[in-house]
Amino acid sequence: MYPKNTWYVACTPDEIADKPLGRQICGEKIVFYRGQEHKVAAVEDFCPHRGAPLSLGYVDNGNLVCGYHGLVMGCDGKTVEMPGQRVRGFPCNKTYAVVERYGFIWVWPGEQDKADAALIHPLEWAENEEWAYGGGLFHIGCDYRLMIDNLMDLTHETYVHASSIGQKEIDEAAPTTTVNGNEGVTARHMENIMAPPFWRMALRGNNLADDVPVDRWQICRFTPPSHVLIEVGVAHAGKGGYDAAPEFKASSIVVDFITPETDTSIWYFWGMARNFNPQDQALTDTIREGQGKIFSEDLEMLERQQQNLLDHPHRALLKLNIDSGGVQSRRILDRIIASEREPEQTVVRISQ
Amino acid sequence: MYPKNTWYVACTPDEIADKPLGRQICGEKIVFYRGQEHKVAAVEDFCPHRGAPLSLGYVDNGNLVCGYHGLVMGCDGKTVEMPGQRVRGFPCNKTYAVVERYGFIWVWPGEQDKADAALIHPLEWAENEEWAYGGGLFHIGCDYRLMIDNLMDLTHETYVHASSIGQKEIDEAAPTTTVNGNEGVTARHMENIMAPPFWRMALRGNNLADDVPVDRWQICRFTPPSHVLIEVGVAHAGKGGYDAAPEFKASSIVVDFITPETDTSIWYFWGMARNFNPQDQALTDTIREGQGKIFSEDLEMLERQQQNLLDHPHRALLKLNIDSGGVQSRRILDRIIASEREPEQTVVRISQ
Amino acid sequence: MYPKNTWYVACTPDEIADKPLGRQICGEKIVFYRGQEHKVAAVEDFCPHRGAPLSLGYVDNGNLVCGYHGLVMGCDGKTVEMPGQRVRGFPCNKTYAVVERYGFIWVWPGEQDKADAALIHPLEWAENEEWAYGGGLFHIGCDYRLMIDNLMDLTHETYVHASSIGQKEIDEAAPTTTVNGNEGVTARHMENIMAPPFWRMALRGNNLADDVPVDRWQICRFTPPSHVLIEVGVAHAGKGGYDAAPEFKASSIVVDFITPETDTSIWYFWGMARNFNPQDQALTDTIREGQGKIFSEDLEMLERQQQNLLDHPHRALLKLNIDSGGVQSRRILDRIIASEREPEQTVVRISQ
Repeated sequence: MYPKNTWYVACTPDEIADKPLGRQICGEKIVFYRGQEHKVAAVEDFCPHRGAPLSLGYVDNGNLVCGYHGLVMGCDGKTVEMPGQRVRGFPCNKTYAVVERYGFIWVWPGEQDKADAALIHPLEWAENEEWAYGGGLFHIGCDYRLMIDNLMDLTHETYVHASSIGQKEIDEAAPTTTVNGNEGVTARHMENIMAPPFWRMALRGNNLADDVPVDRWQICRFTPPSHVLIEVGVAHAGKGGYDAAPEFKASSIVVDFITPETDTSIWYFWGMARNFNPQDQALTDTIREGQGKIFSEDLEMLERQQQNLLDHPHRALLKLNIDSGGVQSRRILDRIIASEREPEQTVVRISQ
Repeated sequence: MYPKNTWYVACTPDEIADKPLGRQICGEKIVFYRGQEHKVAAVEDFCPHRGAPLSLGYVDNGNLVCGYHGLVMGCDGKTVEMPGQRVRGFPCNKTYAVVERYGFIWVWPGEQDKADAALIHPLEWAENEEWAYGGGLFHIGCDYRLMIDNLMDLTHETYVHASSIGQKEIDEAAPTTTVNGNEGVTARHMENIMAPPFWRMALRGNNLADDVPVDRWQICRFTPPSHVLIEVGVAHAGKGGYDAAPEFKASSIVVDFITPETDTSIWYFWGMARNFNPQDQALTDTIREGQGKIFSEDLEMLERQQQNLLDHPHRALLKLNIDSGGVQSRRILDRIIASEREPEQTVVRISQ
Repeated sequence: MYPKNTWYVACTPDEIADKPLGRQICGEKIVFYRGQEHKVAAVEDFCPHRGAPLSLGYVDNGNLVCGYHGLVMGCDGKTVEMPGQRVRGFPCNKTYAVVERYGFIWVWPGEQDKADAALIHPLEWAENEEWAYGGGLFHIGCDYRLMIDNLMDLTHETYVHASSIGQKEIDEAAPTTTVNGNEGVTARHMENIMAPPFWRMALRGNNLADDVPVDRWQICRFTPPSHVLIEVGVAHAGKGGYDAAPEFKASSIVVDFITPETDTSIWYFWGMARNFNPQDQALTDTIREGQGKIFSEDLEMLERQQQNLLDHPHRALLKLNIDSGGVQSRRILDRIIASEREPEQTVVRISQ
């Protein structure tokens, strides 16, 4: 139950630097590699000869060579050659549209004729040298929507991340959720509070006092299929909060790209983009390490929640105001999934 | 295929000393914790908010706090409060009758209106300071009845526990099995034999010579749902055996509480209660360590037996005289399980 | 989908030297052990008493003693005795024809009245002291026919075993496949090439120069149910190749016995028989170690290929000239499997 005619993050460039990468995305087993002129390519991870996974092979001269009997697969899914064989009649492999952009490899797992690179979510910070980015990847055994719920309701920080970014004041500040077409936004502002440890570290990283009251904000933006970009930050209290001048605040964007592997497992690309001290690589590393530790605290909760839901398939869950961000995101997704399933002819017929 | 309207051992107090404990019992996923006034409580391990396991949370002021978004669950299954929410309409969680008694936490997994603490099996030794108890817990992948069979036929000691409590004379002494209502008893007496290593250790622990002939006994008592209490001991030969005066014997009660987790897995609470040198904690520890080592020898056998039975579902097993204890125990269980399934109305109609 | 009325290698003598061995073969759970007069015996791995696996027991006086309650099982599947029991009426265990020959234990998993030791594949080298043998065993998660395919198409050596026995010239030499009744043979000859590392080691092991051109050959012989014996070797170039005199060549027989455990897992007995320096045990060890390392390179490929095929059940594979050996072997197998399934009566009725 996920959109397929859309762009997902498939992997990061380092994952295909030395050898092909086999990865299942939306149920499709795909091998990613650098083909001709170092351009990223993606084909079915299945050798048309005897079914070996092509991802166990290697790249030679821009083509993928099967590691079993040497079939040479082209980026177009056609067999280029095979030792001692005429390959013209070999069946074609499915190929997948892939684009390398913003430091990620994006894949379109659905109908290939609909793939349009212009539909990739724009990430301004990724191309702006005043920003720095650091991130990582987790494999988690849960429905991708549970991860969206998690990120669109940050009250969980108070409980799951109590020692780093959580604080009681999050609970106390009711969030506001709005929907703009296919974008769901849930925002929370806290005023005149003490910053929790992670943000004290960030204040120091931006050469700001960490022992004075701050205003804090969290603005979570969901866009399909499963991107959640969260503006987060603290400013010295009374300097304008979210709108404070840069010299009074430490702010960043929490970056979450959630890629379904199966109905109950995901590839979770997480990271943080910041626009203070972007050249400070040591700070980037410190933040990434801290974020990785914090985000790993969600894993057991998500996997056990998934298991509980599988065990209780008919039990309804609550939809509180704090869940509004997740609920609205699911509505947007349901609409998209339904439209993918509905043949266009049917639509026409109904409108007659 | 287990009775549900009955008391099972759920856990021991140390397991809920620091944090809640999630445990599946008779197919029910339950969280156990100390609630108001330190009283044990048990509710469904499912947060009504979003399905997170409550056992990943913590106890605060006698209530269970969900570790995901802070819902506060009361011992009565009703949500007490949740940050920023009106909780009156929240659906109730199922609760389970629990009683702390005799050093164990007991749970009634079936129909809650039938739970009556008076039905908990009395354990005189547990409240008598002339007795000492030590024990442990194993998780085993087998039907609970295979464990009952195991304990109601101690000929297996000769083979599975050859180096500790087994001896050829067990085989040679035919057991006597009797049934008294819902209690099955299988007894074996051996006269004028040499004690095996475990019992020589126990004789020394009671300041008795370990190199002289003894009389040995094993009296296994099954009571529903799956308790097996075994009077075991040795007395210097000719002093009256089971009825010998305390100064001539070392005797104890092997304690076995078998709690089904699923149809093919159990929580096995084992231990030994003794009434010699009860203050000697070092002796308690030595016995527990020895018993744990011996009882762990059964695990592979039980799990592989279970696998064999699943692979051969239609193959009949033998019911020999040595199996009589297990066979009678299963008859008692079948009767109880059938009565749980039979609606009372049907009974009335038949008797008209 | 494997023949059952046939001989498979079950195990090697060292596996039953100290205790019984439980092993599943063609879906049958069997315990192998040395019975009366050290003769190998095989019975169902299921105690007729309570279903315990007999393989957890021990051998006493030529009989298998169940490790749970001491039932004594005879080689004929009849219970010999059991402490305190009359065993005459005990149900019989299934027994399996087993033969120890050529350094292997062979088992006939199908209809026992058809087992005929004369049908065991003759292995001349195994009884000839001018030959030496060394080998090992792998458990692999794949259909046994994928292993046959692997061995009947050695072009994979170029890719999977590039650093030891692979070389580009294998690809370039087209194989010739012939079928003789139930034997499939695929042969490849390469002339005037440089030997790859493994064969340079073998040349040195036979006191031959390893830095001169050689002729190389691979003659793969499939016989049912799943034996693949491969004549392999190199001779100094121009000395007659396969037919060269012994002083100019290093040659051996790669031995592959593939025993299905289930439809998707096998016991793979591999080894090498050679007729140069047969007394040199150190050389035998070196070759075995090298072969074990090389053959282990196939495991991941075979298991991931199996997984890919299960994920794509309807996708047709190619049957190229290099696959001819595997394709012909499968035809022979299909014929045998069909004849096992066809009741003789049906045959008669059709022919009337």
